[in-house]
Amino acid sequence: MGADEDLFRFVTSASIACGFHAGDPAVMQRTISLAARLNVCIGAHPGFPDLVGFGRRQMALSPDDVYSGVLYQIGALSALAKAQGQSVRYVKAHGALYNQAARDEKLAFAIVEAAASFSEDLAITGLPSSAMEEAAGKLGLPFAAEVFADRAYLPDGTLVPRTRTGAILSEPDEVARRAVAMVTRGGTEATSGEWVPLRTDTICVHGDSPHAVAMASAVREALVQAGVTLRPFVSR
Amino acid sequence: MGADEDLFRFVTSASIACGFHAGDPAVMQRTISLAARLNVCIGAHPGFPDLVGFGRRQMALSPDDVYSGVLYQIGALSALAKAQGQSVRYVKAHGALYNQAARDEKLAFAIVEAAASFSEDLAITGLPSSAMEEAAGKLGLPFAAEVFADRAYLPDGTLVPRTRTGAILSEPDEVARRAVAMVTRGGTEATSGEWVPLRTDTICVHGDSPHAVAMASAVREALVQAGVTLRPFVSR
Amino acid sequence: MGADEDLFRFVTSASIACGFHAGDPAVMQRTISLAARLNVCIGAHPGFPDLVGFGRRQMALSPDDVYSGVLYQIGALSALAKAQGQSVRYVKAHGALYNQAARDEKLAFAIVEAAASFSEDLAITGLPSSAMEEAAGKLGLPFAAEVFADRAYLPDGTLVPRTRTGAILSEPDEVARRAVAMVTRGGTEATSGEWVPLRTDTICVHGDSPHAVAMASAVREALVQAGVTLRPFVSR
Amino acid sequence: MGADEDLFRFVTSASIACGFHAGDPAVMQRTISLAARLNVCIGAHPGFPDLVGFGRRQMALSPDDVYSGVLYQIGALSALAKAQGQSVRYVKAHGALYNQAARDEKLAFAIVEAAASFSEDLAITGLPSSAMEEAAGKLGLPFAAEVFADRAYLPDGTLVPRTRTGAILSEPDEVARRAVAMVTRGGTEATSGEWVPLRTDTICVHGDSPHAVAMASAVREALVQAGVTLRPFVSR
Repeated sequence: MGADEDLFRFVTSASIACGFHAGDPAVMQRTISLAARLNVCIGAHPGFPDLVGFGRRQMALSPDDVYSGVLYQIGALSALAKAQGQSVRYVKAHGALYNQAARDEKLAFAIVEAAASFSEDLAITGLPSSAMEEAAGKLGLPFAAEVFADRAYLPDGTLVPRTRTGAILSEPDEVARRAVAMVTRGGTEATSGEWVPLRTDTICVHGDSPHAVAMASAVREALVQAGVTLRPFVSR
Repeated sequence: MGADEDLFRFVTSASIACGFHAGDPAVMQRTISLAARLNVCIGAHPGFPDLVGFGRRQMALSPDDVYSGVLYQIGALSALAKAQGQSVRYVKAHGALYNQAARDEKLAFAIVEAAASFSEDLAITGLPSSAMEEAAGKLGLPFAAEVFADRAYLPDGTLVPRTRTGAILSEPDEVARRAVAMVTRGGTEATSGEWVPLRTDTICVHGDSPHAVAMASAVREALVQAGVTLRPFVSR
Repeated sequence: MGADEDLFRFVTSASIACGFHAGDPAVMQRTISLAARLNVCIGAHPGFPDLVGFGRRQMALSPDDVYSGVLYQIGALSALAKAQGQSVRYVKAHGALYNQAARDEKLAFAIVEAAASFSEDLAITGLPSSAMEEAAGKLGLPFAAEVFADRAYLPDGTLVPRTRTGAILSEPDEVARRAVAMVTRGGTEATSGEWVPLRTDTICVHGDSPHAVAMASAVREALVQAGVTLRPFVSR
Repeated sequence: MGADEDLFRFVTSASIACGFHAGDPAVMQRTISLAARLNVCIGAHPGFPDLVGFGRRQMALSPDDVYSGVLYQIGALSALAKAQGQSVRYVKAHGALYNQAARDEKLAFAIVEAAASFSEDLAITGLPSSAMEEAAGKLGLPFAAEVFADRAYLPDGTLVPRTRTGAILSEPDEVARRAVAMVTRGGTEATSGEWVPLRTDTICVHGDSPHAVAMASAVREALVQAGVTLRPFVSR
């Protein structure tokens, strides 16, 4: 939470784990309180029910189970947020659920339908040109295309899997340069050296990285110096 | 769930476990759907985070942890209910949380405050003359006094602990007779033979008992024959 | 546990869940005690860490995670068994882990390696001609080919998935007839009507089926009447 | 795990969480491997089944549940250790279980009985003059009296509860000085200024403290400079 406090000074939005892959009610409540104090937008970050694997292991849940599990998590976070006068503004799937739903139409639809069932005011975040974007379009929810400044990309615009060497970048300056290119030039360089065009509505910084604060600070400063205005992708 | 379907034909309200001591999003969703079809009122049944012990083992959670945990569970159930056009109408703590909060003012207050934070329209169910009734009174939430037709009572109006012989009654006719006396005579006979006065707004039948359906059926029939009108304790 | 007591009168071996998909230390201990009293062999039944999904949902665990998770579960059960003077005699993977390991050589190897690390006296149970049988052969552990008298088979000798209609047979007499044919004729009739040859060292009856006791009783009686001698597949 | 590697250079024994309050099979396996490489003794660190609360919340488990839960955890860790040619040498209860068992004879007996059921070669660690020491004595297991160099003590020799200000000391030099006094002078100064005699067989450094490595390093160096020989409290 100490790191969260530092981190929240540099971001516009925070995706909060909802108890399935991480987080518990007390931690969620403190995170909401911190976000409220530092004027950071709150999103639900639902994941697979896998605390031990931090939601990063693929699971074969049925779309029905994904629908009810995501709705459960949004509802839980929202109740805690409302009690503090805040509201959940967007939904971003976590880990393996995020990756599987980027490709699997049924999972993507289940997640977006859960969000839409909860409120038509919720935005969806996910990979550009993914099944998630398509599902959000079909169900009429606003969609924000997300890029990862601290992850290597393949030429087809997907992420290099975490298990491969070089998948995760930890040098703040390099990450900051990539973030600026993503926003101002609309893409990034793949591991092969090719240019990958990427629509960028929001840039992710991983809060569980040991360099999270240094990253967020470097990215923010570089973007501001490049003349980019940072604001939440959801209207306030 | 087969048993639930039979059981729901005889009750007016169902307290639904919210994933901490039992239940998971898919089961909760099916239970809500069944309750909606059979016109049964829905209550949140939050418990301790103890799936293995079914929430029946005492835990020393701080009032803050109880507050956030109960709010989390109410929010999760409510989101699933709203998606089906239903709403959560009351809150009844489960197992060890129910028992501890009957005596502990701070826990009782944490539970009722969580309910009130979520909605001022939620009713609270608990033991008559308990810390829960007092907390509901202070925070202005309607309170329904609950009795247990299938549990033996001590002379002071508390329940004989489950671990003692004779604590749980399993003979439907006897349970039905006790239910009628509770409603029409305002009390029950304690194990000692003494009369225990008990205010009775709602009668609990345990859904996880092997005789649940036979119990609920016998209790309902006996009450109807005694001229008692059964209706949900919350207004529809 | 009441049902377990009845069931254990008809079987020679019991596969005990080890706390990951079901079971907890107290339940495991009572089940071991019952098996000891009724002279039933004990096997470890390790599964995926998924209590909510009862280990029936596919998960993408690495072979390393499967190895350490299976070894953990065998060790835990074995400690409880040894304290009662019993010992774990075989290992049978549960649910989705069983099915994935039947096809996936790396998972199969991880499970058998975990068993072999624990003790070279452990037998392995699994589908005939599966990756599990191959792994047991490579690592030199005895293998018992398992058939399911209460499950429908496809022409290639694999099971009809649980989610399809007709996958699970619930009529004890039919199941008993199939069991006899499996043992005496060495195969079963597939859903297509074709004959599927199946090597049969052990026949599974699912303890969590509502008809478990009737099934086990009918299967045992039919086998005995057909002149088959029932004994544990592991030497005592 | 990076921190563990640094920490393990300064300690003689490591108490490994066994999956109930923290730890999972993969983490346990890596920790055992590290301990083996750095010649550190391994102990089982069983706790309450409460991942969310890190085993620090009191729970009312029956002695039977504690017995089977501790035996389960010892067995699980031991299987992973044996597969690497290591063995579990002692048992130290964790968190709330440690504290409750220091005072509660039945819990203490259940823990020690679980250890003794597993192996008569296991040592027990706990507070000096506690119910744990008494239970170890009754059941004939070696007992090592443990002190906490980074915790404040009350005049009666018990720890100042974690929730109170000043309960936890974070200044490595001060902690090192206290450690030396504990060993060479046989006690420590209580918060009241009074001298508390403490038998000291082993000194705990908390691995989850942010200053763990600095602490362990400072404590080790100070003890060595004071002429104290550090060795595991269990014979190798």
